[in-house]
Amino acid sequence: MSQLPPIQVGLLGIGTVGSGVFRVLQRNQEEIRRRAGRGIAITMVADLDTERARGIVGDAAQVVADARAVIANPDIDIVVELIGGYGIARQLVLEAIAAGKHVVTANKALLAVHGTEIFAAAQAKGVMVAFEAAVAGGIPIIKALREGLTANRIQWVAGIINGTTNFILSEMRDKGLDFDVVLKEAQRLGYAEADPTFDIEGIDAAHKATLMSALAFGIPVQFDKAYVEGITKLQAADIRYAEQLGYRIKLLGITKRVAGGVELRVHPTLVPAKRLIANVEGAMNAVVVQGDAVGTTLYYGKGAGSEPTASAVIADLVDVTRLHTADPQHRVPHLAFQPHAMSDLAIVPMAQVVTGYYLRLRVADQAGVLAEVTGILARAGISIDAVLQREADEVGGEGSTQTDLIILTHDTAEGTMDAALAAMQALPTVLAPIVRIRKEELA
Amino acid sequence: MSQLPPIQVGLLGIGTVGSGVFRVLQRNQEEIRRRAGRGIAITMVADLDTERARGIVGDAAQVVADARAVIANPDIDIVVELIGGYGIARQLVLEAIAAGKHVVTANKALLAVHGTEIFAAAQAKGVMVAFEAAVAGGIPIIKALREGLTANRIQWVAGIINGTTNFILSEMRDKGLDFDVVLKEAQRLGYAEADPTFDIEGIDAAHKATLMSALAFGIPVQFDKAYVEGITKLQAADIRYAEQLGYRIKLLGITKRVAGGVELRVHPTLVPAKRLIANVEGAMNAVVVQGDAVGTTLYYGKGAGSEPTASAVIADLVDVTRLHTADPQHRVPHLAFQPHAMSDLAIVPMAQVVTGYYLRLRVADQAGVLAEVTGILARAGISIDAVLQREADEVGGEGSTQTDLIILTHDTAEGTMDAALAAMQALPTVLAPIVRIRKEELA
Repeated sequence: MSQLPPIQVGLLGIGTVGSGVFRVLQRNQEEIRRRAGRGIAITMVADLDTERARGIVGDAAQVVADARAVIANPDIDIVVELIGGYGIARQLVLEAIAAGKHVVTANKALLAVHGTEIFAAAQAKGVMVAFEAAVAGGIPIIKALREGLTANRIQWVAGIINGTTNFILSEMRDKGLDFDVVLKEAQRLGYAEADPTFDIEGIDAAHKATLMSALAFGIPVQFDKAYVEGITKLQAADIRYAEQLGYRIKLLGITKRVAGGVELRVHPTLVPAKRLIANVEGAMNAVVVQGDAVGTTLYYGKGAGSEPTASAVIADLVDVTRLHTADPQHRVPHLAFQPHAMSDLAIVPMAQVVTGYYLRLRVADQAGVLAEVTGILARAGISIDAVLQREADEVGGEGSTQTDLIILTHDTAEGTMDAALAAMQALPTVLAPIVRIRKEELA
Repeated sequence: MSQLPPIQVGLLGIGTVGSGVFRVLQRNQEEIRRRAGRGIAITMVADLDTERARGIVGDAAQVVADARAVIANPDIDIVVELIGGYGIARQLVLEAIAAGKHVVTANKALLAVHGTEIFAAAQAKGVMVAFEAAVAGGIPIIKALREGLTANRIQWVAGIINGTTNFILSEMRDKGLDFDVVLKEAQRLGYAEADPTFDIEGIDAAHKATLMSALAFGIPVQFDKAYVEGITKLQAADIRYAEQLGYRIKLLGITKRVAGGVELRVHPTLVPAKRLIANVEGAMNAVVVQGDAVGTTLYYGKGAGSEPTASAVIADLVDVTRLHTADPQHRVPHLAFQPHAMSDLAIVPMAQVVTGYYLRLRVADQAGVLAEVTGILARAGISIDAVLQREADEVGGEGSTQTDLIILTHDTAEGTMDAALAAMQALPTVLAPIVRIRKEELA
């Protein structure tokens, strides 16, 4: 078996992740060959910047500007797509599949949006599309969901799956700073991109949550149905109040099996401070999976970066190398469930989602306000878990006539809460837009 | 594909784990079939207590007293061994392999001691031996090491891999109680067995560490070379002092790649309180894996119990069902590395192991003692990280002439420390056996 020549890999795009893949494959080639049963060699690289690409790979691989030259090369067994985005990447992945190549990709956006088309094409052609690097970087969470937890009826998955936003939230809490200030610092340190929209608006996390949702529940990828709310409106005050109530605020990607279907949502979330996941700080990622047999499991590690992401890409290359000779009807299915056995469970609308809530109301410091507010909640059938009322002068300085009223509620449907919020907002004693952050006990 | 009849499984032993496997396979049969591509049915059960076995499986499976009747049944595709121990279990597993059955087992003791023989037999016969349930219960840590982290040169693995001892240590810390008291409580609550030797002496953890060592470094299982130290001598005072110095004490299974080979050891260990693994409480398990590309990853969940362990057994059944038609030369190797590519890295003797140390000396409360003790350490080239000296009356009551001297050292070879300990112990001012606990920063 070790006499087999190396399996030949073509790389589309050799930026941060691609150069990590090349470097780790070179550095650990002997160890990887001992695991995979044969060598894994990048023999061709396509990148528009051929000069930079040659600077990275030297003489080890042929460098071309045209990705299609890689796909057309009959010696290439596996194509690694690291271009990103939904555009040309989609086209190239479909062409690689059509050419009978196995595909490894880190492209969460592509799979969350076009996964159904891509997996169907791969299934029809009998090739594998592997994507461990698409969720939570080096953490083997795709493998856990697709293979490690197959005994379970999975109940929910909740994860810190975007390192940039977790870094920002950690800094906001540590230093008591507001979002804008920390974002600038994160950009300076390289933890946030020049255009951080995909990260801070929760879109990247929603791509990943969409993939985990499909893997956990055997449903098609449905990014367009995901509820997405980022961290740009979070204020330092809310992080501080949450802390006083025993909670941390994390941007979570959540997917949950409920009576009416599947929840799929990304938003800032209060999590009890004593939970392990609440203590995941900085740019680290962690995913909690709750299964009916296994109970709670958690997976933690670096969610991004050159070599952590390369670790996942190469694990996929080893999987393909070990298993590609198996007959295509007896492989691990792309989305954990056999393609003919997918479920049509619907993604439930947010109005039906049931969670707890953190509310912060800026109110007039006068008698009867608390009674008005809690009366509205009571009439809506929303029960209160905790109330924190600040002295007016703690909030607005001495002699202030305004104060913050913080309420934690028990679980209630979002539609019910929306109606109650509208009623509270209309009170003349409520002086500013109410802050509402969802809360999950993750128990 | 879904038209295939169920794959037929024979269960050897239907105790706590076996009944969990049966129950979860029944409850989630539809979900599991959708993942595996065909049904998985336990059609035969061997247990000496046939009456109890029939009470569990009803008419769903044939119950026999003789395990060999299961192995002899040509309709059985997979044999699940849940008898435990090294004796008859070894014989039956070898016979099942010889009969061409795939084997799934939760038996860490068997594989840690006889793994080389068993995996060689399976390799020769072209069948799979899967053992996810043998380490850390429902946490898919075997899969992570064998498949998820294959890109990496793994540097070390450290885990809380025995729930009984972690429960006892958590209780000792929480309540300030001594070992004996908490052990009795754990036995009353069912967290510790009537004969808890394997757990509290570290033997069970060493079985598991032995398996992780083989998977991480591509070496044969070598339980006989493992250093094993349990928690029976731990005192509440040391847990308290460690806490004051910013550490928790955990029973860790550790395996580490070092210049001279591989370390393989189980012992109580001080871990910085801020590490995620230091905050794993009660009967939960967690394993940290450090790889050169991925960095630090952590895996957390229930390490024992009927359904968590069943979760791992069934994940193995799904793996075998998905992949058993592949040609035997292209499967995932049992121990992560191809059998012809195993390493002969030696397990290094404890005298060469390098760690930090926590020392507690009961000393006479008189001038010059600290100088004597630190002088011995200095002459041995052992540098001190922290010293905690208690006032005599805090330790021994008012008017006491004895006190506790606690020292944390930087990394040093165990052989060097042993010599220094002997010299310190010989001082007339050192009044009791010195307590020595190893310390790992896990950074």
